[in-house]
Amino acid sequence: MTRTIVASATREIVIGFDQPFCVIGERINPTGRKKLAAEMIAGNFDTVRKDALEQVLAGATMLDVNAGVTAVDPNATEPGLMVQTLEIVQSLVDVPLSIDSSVTAAIEAGLRVAKGRPLVNSVTGEEEKLEAILPLVKKYDVPVVAISNDESGISMDPDVRFAVAKKIVERAMDHGIKPEDVVVDPLVMPIGALGDAGRQVFALLRRLREELKVNTTCGLSNISFGLPHRHGINAAFIPMVIGAGMTSAIMNPCRPQEMEAVRGANVLAGTDRDCTTWIKTYKDFKPGEHAAPAPVANDAAPTRRRGGREARMAKA
Amino acid sequence: MTRTIVASATREIVIGFDQPFCVIGERINPTGRKKLAAEMIAGNFDTVRKDALEQVLAGATMLDVNAGVTAVDPNATEPGLMVQTLEIVQSLVDVPLSIDSSVTAAIEAGLRVAKGRPLVNSVTGEEEKLEAILPLVKKYDVPVVAISNDESGISMDPDVRFAVAKKIVERAMDHGIKPEDVVVDPLVMPIGALGDAGRQVFALLRRLREELKVNTTCGLSNISFGLPHRHGINAAFIPMVIGAGMTSAIMNPCRPQEMEAVRGANVLAGTDRDCTTWIKTYKDFKPGEHAAPAPVANDAAPTRRRGGREARMAKA
Repeated sequence: MTRTIVASATREIVIGFDQPFCVIGERINPTGRKKLAAEMIAGNFDTVRKDALEQVLAGATMLDVNAGVTAVDPNATEPGLMVQTLEIVQSLVDVPLSIDSSVTAAIEAGLRVAKGRPLVNSVTGEEEKLEAILPLVKKYDVPVVAISNDESGISMDPDVRFAVAKKIVERAMDHGIKPEDVVVDPLVMPIGALGDAGRQVFALLRRLREELKVNTTCGLSNISFGLPHRHGINAAFIPMVIGAGMTSAIMNPCRPQEMEAVRGANVLAGTDRDCTTWIKTYKDFKPGEHAAPAPVANDAAPTRRRGGREARMAKA
Repeated sequence: MTRTIVASATREIVIGFDQPFCVIGERINPTGRKKLAAEMIAGNFDTVRKDALEQVLAGATMLDVNAGVTAVDPNATEPGLMVQTLEIVQSLVDVPLSIDSSVTAAIEAGLRVAKGRPLVNSVTGEEEKLEAILPLVKKYDVPVVAISNDESGISMDPDVRFAVAKKIVERAMDHGIKPEDVVVDPLVMPIGALGDAGRQVFALLRRLREELKVNTTCGLSNISFGLPHRHGINAAFIPMVIGAGMTSAIMNPCRPQEMEAVRGANVLAGTDRDCTTWIKTYKDFKPGEHAAPAPVANDAAPTRRRGGREARMAKA
């Protein structure tokens, strides 16, 4: 059984076929968030702190941390900012982190300060990337997200994307990295532009699980790009990818509809044993509340729903 | 490609792997609805009419019609009541119907009056049932739902359930009925009682599609029996069964969360071409509306969202 272990200083999480879906909170990322980028450049981490706490409260299993503020020289600015951001986030919350950057120096700087066993996000099938990232992954003994594109870009042929994923896993093994430490991102295209995007990714996920036997992840909301009521598409996509074998996703845990889909799919996939998390989260759910069930602490932790004690006492 | 054709007097619907999920409205059924049963016995069909219209407006592809009022002698009461109910429903709406009864005489009476090509619901693997129902299915040239249990009850072993389904298909062929006219119900158990119920049904559905190549259906909401916030479980289950190959379900189309899951999964499975139904249904959707998007006429029909014209004119 494939088990990818990630950890903070105090908490270990397993990503695996028999585990609840691993929700990697995507919010701490200045890409496309001008205000957040400006704040981070100015040394203001208030939004970062808020995003960290809110995502964990909403049920994130891990948090992705990206400090790409798109400065003129990312090599000069991003490593320092990554270190600052990671240190702030890991001082606030105890979930494992993902070090997300396209700048190798920022990943290395992050690896030096991150506690536990962070996930590196990401390597691709490009030669230059493989040779820059895999030695770091080996040196720090951490798992890595492998995105299935290479020098020729993103292939529209799922067989080519599978072949790229296979190549990355093999190259990782050449570097002494175990396949279970490679989490493949099969690349999700917007269904509004490519009608076949869903079926492609479901087929790819099955092959990645059955043939390569690796854990998988994706940037989930990309599927609904350009469509109205994106949460509805995302919430249908989540059970389908979980059914096809996906074991984690980089997504926004502060969206109740998507998190409900994750929790429902965990019940149905048999990874929420005795429906424990479902019952804990929704036992007092009333019709019409769909858009906002009460937030619960991290789903994986044996915590109680907030206010539960008061609620029970009121009934008694 | 397996195509099961059902029809009303004026409308033909194809159930198939490349078709939008077929939603069979379950509401017209006095089982567990004491008030409805009393009304039907008294010759009052107001609720039947209301349920017929509402379900079609909510997006039902077909309607199931059950007249099982559990009289002392169903053989005496149910055939007449089935005929009355079918005639009322088919005079009101133009979707295909499913004749749902455990009483053979009621099915035969229904087949005599139903227009188009109704679905017979159901036959099981029990010898007596096979010999009673299959000759009617052949005589009237209609499709039939095959429930995968037999004299020994419902097996907890998915392989046995598959074998029962296969036996029914083979027996149907002996009667000159084509496999594409057998729609298999793999039997959905409550996940709250049987933690493996989801994985069992997903595996069965794949085999039914890939090996037997038949269309499939189920009583959908059974999966969430006994759990809190059942709509959330149902809404996660729908994309998972569609992803596993299920092509129809007997369900309540008046539940917006479940219908949203159907429409989202159709987009992702590639059967809502160019996302046409999704965009038509949700183009003016606003956050917080989740529990009640405006009802639309039958999803399969090229109808416009109610109020759409007014909305556009107001903008102009």
